[in-house]
Amino acid sequence: MAPAITLAADAPTLSAANTGFMLICSALVLIMTPGLAFFYGGMVRVKSTLNMLMMSFISMGIITILWVLYGFSLAFGTDSGSVIGWSSDFVGFTGIGKTELWDGYTIPIYVFAVFQLMFAIITPALISGALADRVKFTAWSLFIALWATVVYFPVAHWVWGTGGWAFELGVIDFAGGTAVHINAGAAALGVILVIGKRVGFKKDPMRPHSLPLVMLGAGLLWFGWFGFNAGSWLGNDDGVGALMFVNTQVATAAAMLAWLAYEKIRHGAFTTLGAASGAVAGLVAITPSGGAVSPLGAIAVGAIAGVLCAMAVGLKYKFGYDDSLDVVGVHLVGGVAGSLLIGFFATGGGQSDVAGLFYGGGLDQFWKQCAGVFGVLAYSLVASAVLAFLIDKTIGMRVPEDDEIAGIDQAEHAETAYDFSGAGGGAATRTAPPAPVAGAASKKVDA
Amino acid sequence: MAPAITLAADAPTLSAANTGFMLICSALVLIMTPGLAFFYGGMVRVKSTLNMLMMSFISMGIITILWVLYGFSLAFGTDSGSVIGWSSDFVGFTGIGKTELWDGYTIPIYVFAVFQLMFAIITPALISGALADRVKFTAWSLFIALWATVVYFPVAHWVWGTGGWAFELGVIDFAGGTAVHINAGAAALGVILVIGKRVGFKKDPMRPHSLPLVMLGAGLLWFGWFGFNAGSWLGNDDGVGALMFVNTQVATAAAMLAWLAYEKIRHGAFTTLGAASGAVAGLVAITPSGGAVSPLGAIAVGAIAGVLCAMAVGLKYKFGYDDSLDVVGVHLVGGVAGSLLIGFFATGGGQSDVAGLFYGGGLDQFWKQCAGVFGVLAYSLVASAVLAFLIDKTIGMRVPEDDEIAGIDQAEHAETAYDFSGAGGGAATRTAPPAPVAGAASKKVDA
Amino acid sequence: MAPAITLAADAPTLSAANTGFMLICSALVLIMTPGLAFFYGGMVRVKSTLNMLMMSFISMGIITILWVLYGFSLAFGTDSGSVIGWSSDFVGFTGIGKTELWDGYTIPIYVFAVFQLMFAIITPALISGALADRVKFTAWSLFIALWATVVYFPVAHWVWGTGGWAFELGVIDFAGGTAVHINAGAAALGVILVIGKRVGFKKDPMRPHSLPLVMLGAGLLWFGWFGFNAGSWLGNDDGVGALMFVNTQVATAAAMLAWLAYEKIRHGAFTTLGAASGAVAGLVAITPSGGAVSPLGAIAVGAIAGVLCAMAVGLKYKFGYDDSLDVVGVHLVGGVAGSLLIGFFATGGGQSDVAGLFYGGGLDQFWKQCAGVFGVLAYSLVASAVLAFLIDKTIGMRVPEDDEIAGIDQAEHAETAYDFSGAGGGAATRTAPPAPVAGAASKKVDA
Repeated sequence: MAPAITLAADAPTLSAANTGFMLICSALVLIMTPGLAFFYGGMVRVKSTLNMLMMSFISMGIITILWVLYGFSLAFGTDSGSVIGWSSDFVGFTGIGKTELWDGYTIPIYVFAVFQLMFAIITPALISGALADRVKFTAWSLFIALWATVVYFPVAHWVWGTGGWAFELGVIDFAGGTAVHINAGAAALGVILVIGKRVGFKKDPMRPHSLPLVMLGAGLLWFGWFGFNAGSWLGNDDGVGALMFVNTQVATAAAMLAWLAYEKIRHGAFTTLGAASGAVAGLVAITPSGGAVSPLGAIAVGAIAGVLCAMAVGLKYKFGYDDSLDVVGVHLVGGVAGSLLIGFFATGGGQSDVAGLFYGGGLDQFWKQCAGVFGVLAYSLVASAVLAFLIDKTIGMRVPEDDEIAGIDQAEHAETAYDFSGAGGGAATRTAPPAPVAGAASKKVDA
Repeated sequence: MAPAITLAADAPTLSAANTGFMLICSALVLIMTPGLAFFYGGMVRVKSTLNMLMMSFISMGIITILWVLYGFSLAFGTDSGSVIGWSSDFVGFTGIGKTELWDGYTIPIYVFAVFQLMFAIITPALISGALADRVKFTAWSLFIALWATVVYFPVAHWVWGTGGWAFELGVIDFAGGTAVHINAGAAALGVILVIGKRVGFKKDPMRPHSLPLVMLGAGLLWFGWFGFNAGSWLGNDDGVGALMFVNTQVATAAAMLAWLAYEKIRHGAFTTLGAASGAVAGLVAITPSGGAVSPLGAIAVGAIAGVLCAMAVGLKYKFGYDDSLDVVGVHLVGGVAGSLLIGFFATGGGQSDVAGLFYGGGLDQFWKQCAGVFGVLAYSLVASAVLAFLIDKTIGMRVPEDDEIAGIDQAEHAETAYDFSGAGGGAATRTAPPAPVAGAASKKVDA
Repeated sequence: MAPAITLAADAPTLSAANTGFMLICSALVLIMTPGLAFFYGGMVRVKSTLNMLMMSFISMGIITILWVLYGFSLAFGTDSGSVIGWSSDFVGFTGIGKTELWDGYTIPIYVFAVFQLMFAIITPALISGALADRVKFTAWSLFIALWATVVYFPVAHWVWGTGGWAFELGVIDFAGGTAVHINAGAAALGVILVIGKRVGFKKDPMRPHSLPLVMLGAGLLWFGWFGFNAGSWLGNDDGVGALMFVNTQVATAAAMLAWLAYEKIRHGAFTTLGAASGAVAGLVAITPSGGAVSPLGAIAVGAIAGVLCAMAVGLKYKFGYDDSLDVVGVHLVGGVAGSLLIGFFATGGGQSDVAGLFYGGGLDQFWKQCAGVFGVLAYSLVASAVLAFLIDKTIGMRVPEDDEIAGIDQAEHAETAYDFSGAGGGAATRTAPPAPVAGAASKKVDA
């Protein structure tokens, strides 16, 4: 007997199993954004920790509202010209019935919409890792609102929307290698080429102020990523979501080991930062590919991505771009690697019957992957640079240099991350944020 | 074909889908209490961090045992006089068969009981935020045991129990706006009016000792709240749980943005504490209302609650009550706002066909909501104050003033939260807690 | 009507409900290993925090790869001689079809394999708590690879594999009391008897450097443990998983209260470390027994385990073995307690009709439990000691004494956990790990 859902001859019906699973997966993807905030926040110096946290958290606010108002419609509405969607029913979610199913699936539109929302939230947040120490919070907020509108919503449509050019071309992106990671990584590169380096780049490298916080972030990312990846199949009536889950775990493990091996050979130590970075590199690379490859293939994808990303994070010093926390090195490089490796490792026995070069499928899929990868990369890079340029010429992207040196947390948020003095002495909780003084309490933290 | 459950003509049968979903939701609600502990723990000074954590964690111990022994029976047993329940089968869970279903639903009684237990745990823990620095741990433990018995179990029965007066009146409280948030907020107010302010209130405001810890708490709360809210429909055979999930996300985002906008205008900065507080305010307000309103309505509910709570947290300085971490300002005010706004924003197309004023339903539901809100508020306020008074007159509620100034962690728990000295020197792990010395190790933390 | 699955007359079919549930449970068990890392990491001094984190995280890398390559086959392949399994289809996961079900269940083999993998990951990580401060990271990595191969995979087969001697004997171990906790606890004892104590044992006790980090770990463990325990029934078509979930919560609460009561009486304070430790003791003890006992029985199991473990953690000072973070005291003792108490408290109305002494079943089951407990304990103790001895005699288990005193984080990972100076000054992020200097930044942390 097949799963209950196939009993219906004509159309899928609401599956409580898949609906419940997808709601939990949505929660898992949501927790990734705080996870990312801690991952990034632990890596910066104590004086810019809160700004790093806030760049992620604010995305949970802004993107959610835009998604309800028009983002879901642009990404997943009826296609126009293979580049953008629109469905007036989706605007403000006003025309969505609560039991209306996402076309061809067993889950309500609401569930699909909120699951996809969580992807729309984390993607701009990923960019923030390249911008440590130096971007005005209002400029960042404006940037992500515009970037989501002009870049993320269209690109999600290209890759996952019926009628989108990459989707129709047959580009495989199971859970966001192009739409999320290449997109965010290319955007990060575009923005930092416009706004330049932080004060002290190279001369005064950032040392993570709290590696336990980094590891907390890595742990939450790994955890939530199971929802991100396995959930992207939108149900468990067959075993594809399970295969994706297995491959997610396997590739992440392989990439962590590969990165650690690389840094042991090159730099002489197994670092916690390397372990965390390797894990994320593996997660990124398996995101597009995990439904297409076998578990042994996932080991290969993870190991290759781990080494490539470990090598790539050094390029910023060679070429002089300040990708502060390696968004380009991990998300762009890992996303490209994972997307292209599909062309070699796809078995034809996973999410579809498309096989890659190593499984007798020739290079057909590889060229399609290239089209997806470089189409998204180029558009995101250019559009993001233009957006950053426009904001910089109007309200300005960067904080004053003095504020950057003294610490962006005080300047932009009127707070410092920690106060271990225990004596109080700043201003009141919530109702009057502490003035940016250099006195007693803050001295403990920033001195 | 409708979901499998409707195939049964006479009675619901056990749904593996809904059972699994509700177990995961129960775990999600459980993690909210540690999340709350970190949210509160990060906001206090380093010298009272552990006590703040312990006030939440101990609730996980005490309330669980009471729930099994008699709490579930009082809350969800057979009604007596619309005010309390009792079913001897529920006492000690001795008469509950492992496949026996919760009446009218597709999940075992055990699942319903453990899901509801998690609500009973977090509600008293919420109160602790008003009591920073100054309450004996034994007095707190006794208080929550009595408070659960005299206040929470009955109020849960009123609101959610068949036969409970608020339930029968038609008061809408999807997931705990009255039973959890108003209840805890009013209790907090009742207790602090009895026990008074901490030493140094107003003159020596508390500055959060770790905002990353606060943000961790906020992240875990947001994450777990999806289980709290969407799980409260007890299954996904229709789309109501999904609507609740969507609205939870939307209102939280709107409230975070609203709070941040308010504090930027009033105090000149976007703070992380404001972002975290706004998010929680939105979560509170959507808790009763999220099944009744539309996503656009959820934006309104969130935005209104965000501003109201941001304004309300200043009242403690005006009126001189020491609501240390704003339990009244956020949970009472947010809970009242969310509960009453149902009277305006209920669409009639969500959890029921009851419409509010803006959807042609008149003010009928609003008056019902008022009855629920003020009934719970008044009872909880008075009963909690009486309990605090009785404990204060017997074993005493407050620690000695010297201990409060030196730090309640040392006095009550014989520990300090951090020791960054790395040299050890206190007493042994676990077997002999460090004596409350002012020497080497503790000096680093408390000096 | 029975759950849908029983409609199939001949064989189970894939259940989307159970598959989705088990994937989420797998994610929940995965997050336990980072949780354990924080639990342990917070308990050590700041100078060995990262090493403690890394001993857990590396298990997520190494064991995952071994599991795919041959571990799953050894543990769950076709039995040979009641001691080990092997199925060539499982090697590299190459012969597993993506919709092929685990024999007799409604979930794909992939899902069972990845769920069990998470158990294989956390078990060696548990051992690390006994080895604070003093083990080379390469030696540890080699040890867990060998230990998993020689100890964990076989023992998992004994206990849970069809044909395994303990399984066939009827030893009850619902979720890992013997296979996980006794196994890890006995291994820890074996290893520390070989490698000896850290420098300064007894004279210079470890004081937890961050109790909030410990509580974070405890919170994540409690949360993830629901997946560990309730998931072990592999589906929710009946109420056994739900009973296990309830009992997990109840026993944990009882053990936390029991430990706190014990330490209040013996040492005069309720500590956060006691609360966290008691909770873990309860989780350990209910792991084997939670499907067999009633909720009132779970209170008894938890309370007994809480007191026994609280007493047991002092033995290391009496007998002079350096079980740094009480792996023996909590996991071995708690696991033995929980496993043996089944012989008394099994009701015959839970996972099977086997009743214990207090429910009219005589001592039959007790003797079976003894066989399982002492069989696993003895094998793990001896085999682990031999492995540690062999590694010690070849590459060496311990770091040089100078490195141990100065801090293993610098020596083995070229990092320090925190840098609150905010001024940077170490080496670059990721690409060149900071040299082990004693200068500016590190001084703040380690001085």
